[in-house]
Amino acid sequence: MTNFQYVLELLGTFFFAISGALAIQDHHDDLFGAGFTGFVTAIGGGTLRDIMLGSYPLVWIGDINFLYSIFAGVLTAYFFYTVLVRLKRTFLFFDTLGISFFTILGVEKALSLGVNPEIAAIMGMFTAIMGGVIRDVLTNETPVLFRKEIYATACLSGAVLYLILHAIDVGRDINLVISIVVIFVFRLMAVKYKLALPNFRKPISK
Amino acid sequence: MTNFQYVLELLGTFFFAISGALAIQDHHDDLFGAGFTGFVTAIGGGTLRDIMLGSYPLVWIGDINFLYSIFAGVLTAYFFYTVLVRLKRTFLFFDTLGISFFTILGVEKALSLGVNPEIAAIMGMFTAIMGGVIRDVLTNETPVLFRKEIYATACLSGAVLYLILHAIDVGRDINLVISIVVIFVFRLMAVKYKLALPNFRKPISK
Amino acid sequence: MTNFQYVLELLGTFFFAISGALAIQDHHDDLFGAGFTGFVTAIGGGTLRDIMLGSYPLVWIGDINFLYSIFAGVLTAYFFYTVLVRLKRTFLFFDTLGISFFTILGVEKALSLGVNPEIAAIMGMFTAIMGGVIRDVLTNETPVLFRKEIYATACLSGAVLYLILHAIDVGRDINLVISIVVIFVFRLMAVKYKLALPNFRKPISK
Repeated sequence: MTNFQYVLELLGTFFFAISGALAIQDHHDDLFGAGFTGFVTAIGGGTLRDIMLGSYPLVWIGDINFLYSIFAGVLTAYFFYTVLVRLKRTFLFFDTLGISFFTILGVEKALSLGVNPEIAAIMGMFTAIMGGVIRDVLTNETPVLFRKEIYATACLSGAVLYLILHAIDVGRDINLVISIVVIFVFRLMAVKYKLALPNFRKPISK
Repeated sequence: MTNFQYVLELLGTFFFAISGALAIQDHHDDLFGAGFTGFVTAIGGGTLRDIMLGSYPLVWIGDINFLYSIFAGVLTAYFFYTVLVRLKRTFLFFDTLGISFFTILGVEKALSLGVNPEIAAIMGMFTAIMGGVIRDVLTNETPVLFRKEIYATACLSGAVLYLILHAIDVGRDINLVISIVVIFVFRLMAVKYKLALPNFRKPISK
Repeated sequence: MTNFQYVLELLGTFFFAISGALAIQDHHDDLFGAGFTGFVTAIGGGTLRDIMLGSYPLVWIGDINFLYSIFAGVLTAYFFYTVLVRLKRTFLFFDTLGISFFTILGVEKALSLGVNPEIAAIMGMFTAIMGGVIRDVLTNETPVLFRKEIYATACLSGAVLYLILHAIDVGRDINLVISIVVIFVFRLMAVKYKLALPNFRKPISK
């Protein structure tokens, strides 16, 4: 399992780097800007998690292969730009795969460092979404988090599911697969059927 | 005193979470977004302080009660939304109480970790304001810090006052009360009388 | 060399604080806001680097002289405002000197903590630019990083050059001078001749 998981981590990093590089939208973009957003998207969530948990060295600092995955992702985005922006559906697929896997990976890492399950759920969600949030803040976009779609909520739900199954002693491998699939399907369904959470603000009666 | 202080910390967290949840202003808000801004507002300042000082575990990671306070605050904001937005004056009261207490708490924590008084003053101010600053950055608002009112300045002044009284051996409890009251009154007076610092930019003579 | 380097660090901090304070552009600025942006610009890059590398205490927390340099920089910006904004060319000079030196300083610090050269190059660039990036995010500017000029790219190039010369055993002092001069000249040439990297997005053929 461990080798398989390591490959998935590198692949997830690669896909996040592609997604980040493609997020360069305005006309002042250049190769460096795209590389930077790719980098930030790929490492932001895990970096914030590890800094909050005081877990050193950061994953991408301790293992240079993550940097190579990002480099490969940005170059892929550059050379296959026209293909990739046309394949929006393909891209949603990879991005959703990325957040699904990183959520559960983040939960497991937090648990392994001995925190409460509630904290682990938050850390799982952070691992998946904060790279994109930091990218959006840097490029002056409204963070993906505040857009009218189920995104972080799917991650948080999957993290809570993993923790419940973990608490009732479901085996790790089965739990991993179930939780990842649930996040993946929940997010895709939400996009397809335009599911959304209820508004926070209620109309104020006069 | 310690139990009293702990209750105040949890209450301050609760009020900051309410304030953060209510900050969701645009039309794309939902329950998750409000929860997230509430969370960030409540933990942002203390988290940044502790990461800068290398003090682990972070307060809300080491003690789950802070998370429950935030949860309670967000739910309170949700269920009493119409009441709370009408009670703007009440709200200013709680927010000001929050920054007053968190400033001095932050100063004391920094001092206990052995930093210089100047650094402790900055850390106190950061504890009080950086949660709101991070929230404003995430929601694309101009950070509260740069608005034309005395806000961070009141915190910094109170922090410096605490450190001066500390240096001349005023007892901790008395010092705590004096400094908190000074921040509180300074801030409320500033809002009431529209006090402001001098502009930085001067008109350039032609 | 060490004393000379220390003086340069304090001077670089001083110039970055001036540059940050002058970045207050909108009409809601005040002395506190300018002080805050000066502070963030001066310490942001090194702080992010040290937090990512887990290197404590942060430079400006461990040595109070850095805070005094920032204070002096902000006051200088305040009292000589009209002169400084007129001397735009002078200012580019100091800012460029700042990023040149901080890049190499960041590379050396990262190497001394035992990271890979690739990571050290990134950390060098971060040391130089992230203070300005954080400042731009806080003031709702498009980060300097994404503007159409060679800026971060010059830092990264200089960092890579330093690491290559380091690998082929060029002496430290000579390497330091060469790399700093290369960043400095590259950046100034880029501004003068409006050099830019190729766009990331390519026109999509219909």
